Amino acid sequence: MSKVAKANAVVGQSGGPTGVINASLVGVIEEAKKHPEIKKLYGAIHAVSGIVKEQFIDLKKLSPAVLKAAAASPSSALGSSRDKPDEAYCARILEVFKERDIRYFFYIGGNDSANTAYIINTMAEKSGYEMRAFHIPKTIDNDLLVTDHCPGYGTAAKFVSCALIGDDIDNRALPGIKVDCIMGRNAGFLTAASVLGKKRDDDGPHLVYVPERGVTLDKFLNDVEDVYKKLGRCTVAISEGICDLEGVLWTKKIAEVNEKDAHGNIQLSGTGMLADFLADQIRAILKIKRVRADTFGYLQRSFAGLQSPVDVKEARQCGVAAVKYAMKEISGSVAIKRLSGAKYKIELFRTDLKNVAEKTKSMPDEFINSDGNGVTDAFLKYALPLTGGLPKTEYLGNRPRV
Amino acid sequence: MSKVAKANAVVGQSGGPTGVINASLVGVIEEAKKHPEIKKLYGAIHAVSGIVKEQFIDLKKLSPAVLKAAAASPSSALGSSRDKPDEAYCARILEVFKERDIRYFFYIGGNDSANTAYIINTMAEKSGYEMRAFHIPKTIDNDLLVTDHCPGYGTAAKFVSCALIGDDIDNRALPGIKVDCIMGRNAGFLTAASVLGKKRDDDGPHLVYVPERGVTLDKFLNDVEDVYKKLGRCTVAISEGICDLEGVLWTKKIAEVNEKDAHGNIQLSGTGMLADFLADQIRAILKIKRVRADTFGYLQRSFAGLQSPVDVKEARQCGVAAVKYAMKEISGSVAIKRLSGAKYKIELFRTDLKNVAEKTKSMPDEFINSDGNGVTDAFLKYALPLTGGLPKTEYLGNRPRV
Repeated sequence: MSKVAKANAVVGQSGGPTGVINASLVGVIEEAKKHPEIKKLYGAIHAVSGIVKEQFIDLKKLSPAVLKAAAASPSSALGSSRDKPDEAYCARILEVFKERDIRYFFYIGGNDSANTAYIINTMAEKSGYEMRAFHIPKTIDNDLLVTDHCPGYGTAAKFVSCALIGDDIDNRALPGIKVDCIMGRNAGFLTAASVLGKKRDDDGPHLVYVPERGVTLDKFLNDVEDVYKKLGRCTVAISEGICDLEGVLWTKKIAEVNEKDAHGNIQLSGTGMLADFLADQIRAILKIKRVRADTFGYLQRSFAGLQSPVDVKEARQCGVAAVKYAMKEISGSVAIKRLSGAKYKIELFRTDLKNVAEKTKSMPDEFINSDGNGVTDAFLKYALPLTGGLPKTEYLGNRPRV
Repeated sequence: MSKVAKANAVVGQSGGPTGVINASLVGVIEEAKKHPEIKKLYGAIHAVSGIVKEQFIDLKKLSPAVLKAAAASPSSALGSSRDKPDEAYCARILEVFKERDIRYFFYIGGNDSANTAYIINTMAEKSGYEMRAFHIPKTIDNDLLVTDHCPGYGTAAKFVSCALIGDDIDNRALPGIKVDCIMGRNAGFLTAASVLGKKRDDDGPHLVYVPERGVTLDKFLNDVEDVYKKLGRCTVAISEGICDLEGVLWTKKIAEVNEKDAHGNIQLSGTGMLADFLADQIRAILKIKRVRADTFGYLQRSFAGLQSPVDVKEARQCGVAAVKYAMKEISGSVAIKRLSGAKYKIELFRTDLKNVAEKTKSMPDEFINSDGNGVTDAFLKYALPLTGGLPKTEYLGNRPRV
């Protein structure tokens, strides 16, 4: 629109919650309060589904204490939705916007949410309804395009790092093979974060498998055996989205084998299937006795009280920036640019919604080692600033004997 | 022995690691340094197995910085062992003690470790070898007799609380049924800790099942359906050790059904089996679409950087007390007594090894509600002081609509 309209605004949170998606929400609220152009700031309960059902709360009325507590809470404080609005759904959203004089739409989410904002924005343009739609990035998978990294990733990465720091030292105490299955269907960033707390040369995880590199069962077992022969133990971090060399998901392959062998098997779709399968294979083929497997599940995105301070700060800044951009520019998505220099520093910028909508980013080749079973120093340099400080541990069992 | 001998000492850590078992170790080291009666303080690498293999390190030589880092580390810094020494094994231990002039034995562990200390102590008495054996309690299960609670429990309880605080608010954002399976084969204390972060009336977990109360699948499904009808969602915390009304483990029953239905099923012993089975039953019988399940696994005992301050303090005190008692009393086990009064306060005391050896404690009836699907205020009063402060969260979705 040509000049900034005095109108109402709405903000929603979509898709899988993260540990800092509420910090972005609070950023939007606090910045919106500073702009008289934004009359009411509606919070859409359960994202787009709350818009079409007109389930709104008044966000400018929340007390500072509530905002502070919300910013520190995991999950989406407004509620979320998995709806992927089609044209008709978006048309209904636009109707509500028109009825309620909403001309600012802030949508915190992943690439689907960017797409929703894009469709609505395009639709509004076509119908001559002046509005601005802003996408604010969030995802624990870190798989959005354009932005250097996504708010939500640093906090999930911190959880995964702390889990592996502890789990690997647990595996020192009672040696064996430990397989940890980590979220990330298409991108390996979160699985890769399992290495961020490593300090000693022989710290685990010793092997890391990400969806970006196909791996065969033979290769996996050989890798495990090699580490086991060397260290007498092995900790493995594996992404839920790993594939074979033809790009077929292991989870799909296992489910098919399972179905063939075991008609009516009640375990087919189990969350722990991949890790348990690999543990069974290690026991059966490598004849190693102590093999354990865990699947981290929802704790990776929802664990309370464990935010990355830098992630919280950036998530909030992204919320603030969306409102600022909406006051003076066209619609868009907020993105993070990492500045060059020894010290970690970022700045935010606006990019077009279509650059982020629907597409996903994979880990670049330079982050994955040539064996396809670990990460590189380039990845460490990229990811370490995002988690904040990680706990240090001490293990005494390797000291000289007396 | 009649008077305190000037001799060497050994300390070991046995069984499953905890988040504060190293704080107890550091307590032993620091107190031992104060007593000239203790010449060398050996650390046994991998517990009893390190004693019989004579794999020792010199603990008095560790720097304060190392001790500080160790006390903050999860897992057993000396390494652990699952060995349950029989008479012959204990005889070999006693031989090593005699060879090395070890007359003080500190063993940090659960009821099996108390039993090991008891056997060795009895054997030493019979053979006229003067020594003192002290058991220092640790377990995340909180299932030791005599002591009010066990070091290790508070930290694991904090992990489970934080997990459920986050997971339940995640379930608000994307409503459905969530089943969380928590460690504890015989005692429900850790599963019960899932409720400690509840603040709002409708916070989950809404249902809690512990091994101390048998539950049928029908009862479980009815309970879930009742909560779902009322709240449109339901978070369930279930112990890995739940049984049917005849006391048969559900995991055993499921494995049998599985075996019958699906010869050669590769999933039989999967860690996620129980939670996944229950999720499948909820989908199939209650026809609820969004059902998710997680099994927390080793993270409950090993997550780095998440200790309960009170648990750390008490674990350390137990280590200190063991050395002090050994200087002036007979052998024994350190136990915690909770003092009466409004403010949480404890004192330590010595109990005989045989009082703790082998036996386990269950949750008392007064901690479990009459429906067998939740806990009582008496449990909250018991457990809340043990975790330290828990994170508070904010959910906005229930506020008045505009």
